[in-house]
Parts: sequence; structure tokens; C-alpha cells
Amino acid sequence: MSEDSSVVAADLPMKKPSEEEEENGSTVAASVEVDGTGKEPSCISAVIPGWFSEISPMWPGEAHSLKVEKILFQGKSDYQDVIVFQSSTYGKVLVLDGVIQITERDECAYQEMITHLPLCSIPNPKKVLVIGGGDGGVLREVARHTSVEQIDICEIDAMVIDVSKQFFPEIAVGFEDPRVNLTIGDGVAFLKAVPVATYDAVIVDSSDPIGPAQELFEKPFFESVAKALRPGGVVCTQAESIWLHMHIIEDIVANCRQVFKGSVNYAWTTVPTYPSGVIGFMLCSTEGPPVDFKHPINLIDSDENLNKSDRPLRYYNREIHSAAFCLPSFAKKVIDSKAK
Amino acid sequence: MSEDSSVVAADLPMKKPSEEEEENGSTVAASVEVDGTGKEPSCISAVIPGWFSEISPMWPGEAHSLKVEKILFQGKSDYQDVIVFQSSTYGKVLVLDGVIQITERDECAYQEMITHLPLCSIPNPKKVLVIGGGDGGVLREVARHTSVEQIDICEIDAMVIDVSKQFFPEIAVGFEDPRVNLTIGDGVAFLKAVPVATYDAVIVDSSDPIGPAQELFEKPFFESVAKALRPGGVVCTQAESIWLHMHIIEDIVANCRQVFKGSVNYAWTTVPTYPSGVIGFMLCSTEGPPVDFKHPINLIDSDENLNKSDRPLRYYNREIHSAAFCLPSFAKKVIDSKAK
Repeated sequence: MSEDSSVVAADLPMKKPSEEEEENGSTVAASVEVDGTGKEPSCISAVIPGWFSEISPMWPGEAHSLKVEKILFQGKSDYQDVIVFQSSTYGKVLVLDGVIQITERDECAYQEMITHLPLCSIPNPKKVLVIGGGDGGVLREVARHTSVEQIDICEIDAMVIDVSKQFFPEIAVGFEDPRVNLTIGDGVAFLKAVPVATYDAVIVDSSDPIGPAQELFEKPFFESVAKALRPGGVVCTQAESIWLHMHIIEDIVANCRQVFKGSVNYAWTTVPTYPSGVIGFMLCSTEGPPVDFKHPINLIDSDENLNKSDRPLRYYNREIHSAAFCLPSFAKKVIDSKAK
Repeated sequence: MSEDSSVVAADLPMKKPSEEEEENGSTVAASVEVDGTGKEPSCISAVIPGWFSEISPMWPGEAHSLKVEKILFQGKSDYQDVIVFQSSTYGKVLVLDGVIQITERDECAYQEMITHLPLCSIPNPKKVLVIGGGDGGVLREVARHTSVEQIDICEIDAMVIDVSKQFFPEIAVGFEDPRVNLTIGDGVAFLKAVPVATYDAVIVDSSDPIGPAQELFEKPFFESVAKALRPGGVVCTQAESIWLHMHIIEDIVANCRQVFKGSVNYAWTTVPTYPSGVIGFMLCSTEGPPVDFKHPINLIDSDENLNKSDRPLRYYNREIHSAAFCLPSFAKKVIDSKAK
């Protein structure tokens, strides 16, 4: 390289947040203290003042931040910290244990894909179970399916439901459907009590496998799901990011391959406010009538009434359904090796 | 909502970065001053201390940050600010005018897709022009195509090339291919001087349309590209994010529809360190032998020699090629309306 005078080779010492601050995950910095004592001001808490920053050991070394207009709610439930804030460009935002779960601007991608990938892959789903999903967004999407007669939901944290009803009425609207039966409780225990072969589809809308959702990524849970499904029934479960969590995904795929004797597939979608900008799903079926997830047979996006409605599908369509199963080579290699 | 005692409704005043700080875009905070004068410490510069934060009017209200291990280079070329740093989890990072261009961890997605989407859509590409792309990554990918006889590149900023050769040897390796002819200069002027119908493919690997790349998003530039392409030749140009820039994309699509009389398509890929986690491409062909971009005919991913090589394809394959053209409904609606 030429030694141009405009070029300055720099090797500056960088001030780093302490280990402890990093392990604690994110907080919203509400004020800045400059006390002249040499103590670090509170804006050193790895947070841009006036912004919410998402820092977690699940995605070390990176953080996505949203500018905060106003904090609308801060609470601590029996299970997790709950924050709602008005962001400047993503609408209202729901945060659980420091991790963004929903923004009004991009929630359509997650809710529509986690719901319609499984429900459009089988003919005439009638009984659907949602584990987690306390915001109501998955219920809203399940309710689009006119064949569905019964929508059971088991959410562990009542505060999530309350907060969603208060601050996210366009998402919590899912609870208003008369087919919905709500249970507040542990999804693992709920599933164990379900009679064999009850559901056509189970959707597991969980947070990350650190905290209350941990068991939802383990083999005994998948065994309960398989038992609760009819032959040829389907499950769709949140399954992390191919860019960040291939080691977790490898384990989930291996577990599912042992448990689900129909088919086992990985699909993904883009969600800008999730770490790495993508989130994936495991889509599996039980032994029985075969399910070809990659070719949807229940073409909800052709429903003219739906698409003339107040809330047409914003993200999902049949092309993006099939495309969601196409993986980058680095991910395909790992997942194919575990899926066989 | 129940008035649980654990629930605290908060309405905290938030300290915001000044307007000026936001307009200035990103900087790397190299130190924290706490001087007891009541002056804001420098960590108020909207940056997590010890981290690089990407803030721009192109994506207001959000910022992605990477933890910095060491700044390796800081310079100012005739065209832009250039920074290279070692990040803690994304390898080395190249930043131009405050915007992340490349990280070692995810560069494969961008470089492979912007190159193989056009080159795998036509039979036996022989002459290829790259505009921009001074890091060499697109050259590296073009060089995988054994049919290619001539690879011309016109990059405006020599410092980008020098920095890439020094810090990103696995990317700059593209310059070592004997088929490469480098011109340092203005891509707009270069294209105007190209004889009619010279190239089979043109790849425009530009930064955002603010700064030196602005003209590369305008109609006169597309007209020069069309003139430089043979009948049925193809162009692939960086075309922003469907989540952030639909207004820019609408204009680009409308311009391309006027200029390119073959086909006009939009495709996209995931890149975790780009804003919103996705980046798109315009893929157009000139009048002549028809090009069906959605169904690749030049199956580079079936090349066994390539896939046994030191550097097999990490991201691109024929399934992800076709999937890249499937758009979420909100984007499809806008793009289809402009493309007709």
C-alpha cells in the first residue's frame, strides 16, 4: 500500500464494557450521570443514550439499537422482564428479558411465516395448538384459516398477554376470535396432558432457549408434540438464525429427526429487528399421510376476500413459502447431514 | 391490564443525541472523557464505547454495532473516509463513510449473489465489466466462471483497493486473476467510452446512493450500461433493502423498465451486517435472446472441481438463486406495479 499522507495507521486502545455488563444483557439507558468521580457514567452500560440496545451472549460482539421516543411500560413478571417502548421508526416494540420480540413495523414477517408455513402445508387444518405466542399475533394469523374450528393456546406469562392487549391491539386482536381457548400455564405440562392425536398442527412461538423457553428446544418436548399430533400432523417451531446459531440448529434438527417420522425441514424468513436479520423454523410432520412442506396445498394467498380485507397478508405468499426452504450452501450442508 | 405491584408504568425522559450528531453519521468512539465540567462525555456521540455503530439518515432510528478489538486503518481518500477494524466476532471489517461494506464473516453472501445471479443466468459469459467492487470480492467470484475471457473493472477509489489488498487478502485475491484489467476512475465516464455491445454482463457493486455512488442509481447511467451490453446481455446492480428503501427501489425499477427492453427483475439476499439484514439487486437484460433470471442455466454449483477447491461456494446454489426472486407480498406489490 502506498504511504499516502492522508493515510493514518491507527492502533487505538478501545474502552470496553465490563464482562459483567455484557453478561447482564440489555437495559434501556434512561439517564446519563457524569459525576466527576472518575466512575464510568451510566452510558458506558453498552447502551447508546436514548436508544435501546440489544446485547446478549446469544449474539456476542454485536448489537442492534433502536431509537426510543418513550418508554410505555416496564415490568417484571414471574418469568421475565417486560418492556414496551415507542421507537422512532419501528412503531411500538415489545422486549422480553432484553430481547426484542416484536416491532409493529416488521412483526408481519414472523407471525405470517410461523403460522402459514405449517397451516398451508396440510389440507383443511381443524384443530391447532399454539405454545407461547402470548402477544396474539399467531392467533390472528391462524384465524385467517376458515377450516380451523378450534385454536388452543398455552402461554406461560399472563403479563405478556396483558401488555399486548394494552399496547399492541392490532396483534392482540387474535385473542378476540371465538375459536380461541386460552390457558395460562406451562406449555410442557400442557402438552403432556393432551390426548394422543388431538391436533392437526402445533405452532411453538417461543423466545430464545435461554430463560423460560429452554425446555421447548429439548427432545422430551418434541416427543410430547409428536404424541399430540394426529398422523400426518405438522409442527412449526421457532429455530434461531442460520448466521448465528448453527450449533443449536444442528442439535434441534438431530432431535427432530429422531422424533418425527414424517418429514423434517428447516425454513427461514427475514425479520430486520431480530439478530442477524433472519429467523428460522423447524417444520416437521408425524408418520401418516405425507406432507410436502415445500409445495403448499392450502393456498390462503389466493383468498380474494382475505386480500380485500382490512388486513391483507403483508409478507406471506405461496412463492415465499417455497423459497423459505431454500438454504444458503453453508447451512444446507450442515442441516442435510443431520437430517439424513 | 391488572394493576400488579410488579408493574411500573414508566415515562422516562430520554437523553437524545443532537441532530448534528445524527446527521454526521457514524464514528468510532476511541475514548471516553469524563471531565466533570458538565459537558457531555464523548460516549454521547451515539456510539457504544469500544464498539463501532452504524448510524445514517439512510436508516434513521436504528443502528447496528460491532464490538471493536482493534482499529487497523483509518484514512481519508479523495472520495470517502476509509476505516478497517478487527471486530470481536465478525472478523475484519471495511467501513466507507461510516457504512459497513464488508465483514469477513458474511461477505460470501453479497459477493456470491451479486456475481452468480447474473452470470449463471446466461450461457458462457465471456466479457464481464465490474463497476466499483474495489475490494476484489466480485472479481474473485467472476473468476470462478471458466467461460470468462476478460474481466474489466473500474473502481473510483484506489485507497479501497490498497486497503483490501493489505487487510483482506482472501477477498482481494480476485485482482490476481490474469483475466482482470483494472482501471482507476469514474465508472460513469468509463461506461460512456465503452464501444456498443461490448459486454455479456455488467456488475455494479456500489455503495449507497449518497456520496460517490449517487450517479450509479440514475437513468443516464443505466442507459450507458444498456449500450455497453450485447443483445441479451445482463446487468446486476446493488439495489438497497426492501425493508428500508422501497421508495428508492420503486424509482430504480421504473428507470430500469424504461431502459432495459429484455426483462427487469428484483432479487435479494440476507447479509447480517447490512441495515435490516437484507440487500437487493436489480437484474435486467437488454433486448435480444431472452434471459429467464429465475431459472439459472449455467450451473456453477454443480462444478465438482470448484466444490472440492480451497474455497467452495459458501452461500450460492441453484435453489437459492431461484428463491432470491421470490418477494414478500408488500414488496412484490410495489415492484410488480412498477415493472409492468
